[in-house]
Amino acid sequence: MTTTIATGWPTRELVLGDLATAQGRVVGGLRLRYRVLGDVAAAAENGWILVFHALTGSSELEAWWGPLVGPGRALDTSRHAIVAANLLGSCYGSTGPTEWKTQHSDAFPELTPEDLARAHLPLLDHLGVQRLALATGGSLGGMVALQWGRVTSVPTARLVVFAAPTAASPQAIGWNAVQRMAIEADPAWQGGLYPTGHGPVAGLAAARALAMITYRSGAEFQARFGRQSSRSEGVFDVEHYLRRQGDKLVARFDAASYVALMRAMDLQEVGDLTVAAQDTARRVGRVIGVGIDSDILYPATEVREWVAAYQAAGAPAEYREIASLYGHDAFLIEWDQVDRILRDG
Amino acid sequence: MTTTIATGWPTRELVLGDLATAQGRVVGGLRLRYRVLGDVAAAAENGWILVFHALTGSSELEAWWGPLVGPGRALDTSRHAIVAANLLGSCYGSTGPTEWKTQHSDAFPELTPEDLARAHLPLLDHLGVQRLALATGGSLGGMVALQWGRVTSVPTARLVVFAAPTAASPQAIGWNAVQRMAIEADPAWQGGLYPTGHGPVAGLAAARALAMITYRSGAEFQARFGRQSSRSEGVFDVEHYLRRQGDKLVARFDAASYVALMRAMDLQEVGDLTVAAQDTARRVGRVIGVGIDSDILYPATEVREWVAAYQAAGAPAEYREIASLYGHDAFLIEWDQVDRILRDG
Repeated sequence: MTTTIATGWPTRELVLGDLATAQGRVVGGLRLRYRVLGDVAAAAENGWILVFHALTGSSELEAWWGPLVGPGRALDTSRHAIVAANLLGSCYGSTGPTEWKTQHSDAFPELTPEDLARAHLPLLDHLGVQRLALATGGSLGGMVALQWGRVTSVPTARLVVFAAPTAASPQAIGWNAVQRMAIEADPAWQGGLYPTGHGPVAGLAAARALAMITYRSGAEFQARFGRQSSRSEGVFDVEHYLRRQGDKLVARFDAASYVALMRAMDLQEVGDLTVAAQDTARRVGRVIGVGIDSDILYPATEVREWVAAYQAAGAPAEYREIASLYGHDAFLIEWDQVDRILRDG
Repeated sequence: MTTTIATGWPTRELVLGDLATAQGRVVGGLRLRYRVLGDVAAAAENGWILVFHALTGSSELEAWWGPLVGPGRALDTSRHAIVAANLLGSCYGSTGPTEWKTQHSDAFPELTPEDLARAHLPLLDHLGVQRLALATGGSLGGMVALQWGRVTSVPTARLVVFAAPTAASPQAIGWNAVQRMAIEADPAWQGGLYPTGHGPVAGLAAARALAMITYRSGAEFQARFGRQSSRSEGVFDVEHYLRRQGDKLVARFDAASYVALMRAMDLQEVGDLTVAAQDTARRVGRVIGVGIDSDILYPATEVREWVAAYQAAGAPAEYREIASLYGHDAFLIEWDQVDRILRDG
């Protein structure tokens, strides 16, 4: 099936063969929605690029990394072909839990970032990709990129990981736990078995509002909102903003996908860092770990630590840092710095 | 009414006269539950001590500052008399919203930390307190202490403020906004009009779980929980802990009081810092602002900044810092450091 979407690049779908998940299930019939942007002929010479999206992203790369994509840009569509798939478990065309439950009697499989990475192997095989010039992503996409480095059978020249840990910290799991609790407090959740399109609106909005605080920084909120109440009588602007962010996500995302992908983030774990670094060094030419100085979700220090551990294990790892007021979301905002890292990284 | 509680000090109640709130209401008939610990005769010579509790505290001082209270301790019951009242809006004997709605047709008044401080003036008058050796509190109690410095008519030798801002930051308001959203996602909330004892269990638990993350630190969670799942199959220990903290609060606290006091925290604002400092300097001998190096809720830098502003305005303000792994809650954990600051501070 091929659908042409607004941005001009066609969206395609691939039904995967059996996927053996890290939790020990073998799952057949999973569908991956993906797009290929750029020049496939040039990519045969210069290599392909593989991009993994973050928690609520999609294969529509221009929607969230637009300024980086195009001829002459860091993700150069005149020199490369770029593959971006919707991650398994998401709700933008790949198989996720809400669609799954309409067609299956068993539960949607629990997926890890390693599973999400492995699902791309049959896709690259299908596309005839022999080597990657670059594999990259931020946040959950960065976790998947780290797993890609460990498991890929497609040689990858550079792996650029933005704002992602090799193992989810207990504090990061805690933020997700609270989001689960907020979603569960909404009776529309029904343990995830709500009728499609009738999910937990208030619970998911609360979860997103919490996530937004962890995606930004106190300093940004201070500069942007201060203690103003200019939007709504008796409501501080920061609260008005967070509620609006909640509403916006509810309108575009499925709660069960959100929960499935949060769980995947909790399960991020590359295992022994020396082994992971050595596995990665056999598959990847250079690993660039990028921290963000104001990130409170996956602090720069976590990135610095795994880069140091990879280096200590002899892997070709390097550390870069984005300086930003914007916190974790800086990899979706600081275009000049992200462009420079992706280009020269 | 006098009730003797387990710790031996009697609990008493005072019905206040009209309270003119900062939001412009005049409210009569509010009841303040309080306790007096220590030696009233000695206090006539050495001064009284006034303590303000934090969000979910009570007048039962020993329950949360126990190691600091007693003969020869920082809150020396052989040399002072110590007054601790349950804050207005709370659910431990003072008038709060859930009790209010059973007796009134109008809404419970919106209260600020300044209101919570002012409510203590008739209490000290009732007790015949002429001067305070010390007024202190942490978190919300620290906010109330800061307001006390601005408005007290009872001369106060030392004001010791733990981990509290002169104005709630937009990020701190954001954490509270998400907690409100989680509570509202629980239909049992009913806009706060639930039947007494039938409040939003799941929503309040989610709110408390979020608060607990902001009360602690990522480093503590790393040391304490790591990525272990030893308590419950498939559930990380940090999530097990947060859910248990939620359940424990639900069993002991009222949701409408929680919302009312969160709102008070959002409304913390001493106004112009120079004016506030000067008002305080006329009433207070020394102001000690105490930051906690790992506090993510009210970062040490916020405390350092208001202390510097008070100093710049000529107020006798000093900065102290608690070094701790435990984050915001360190003022309830680091007994040696808190004791030293309260004693010599």
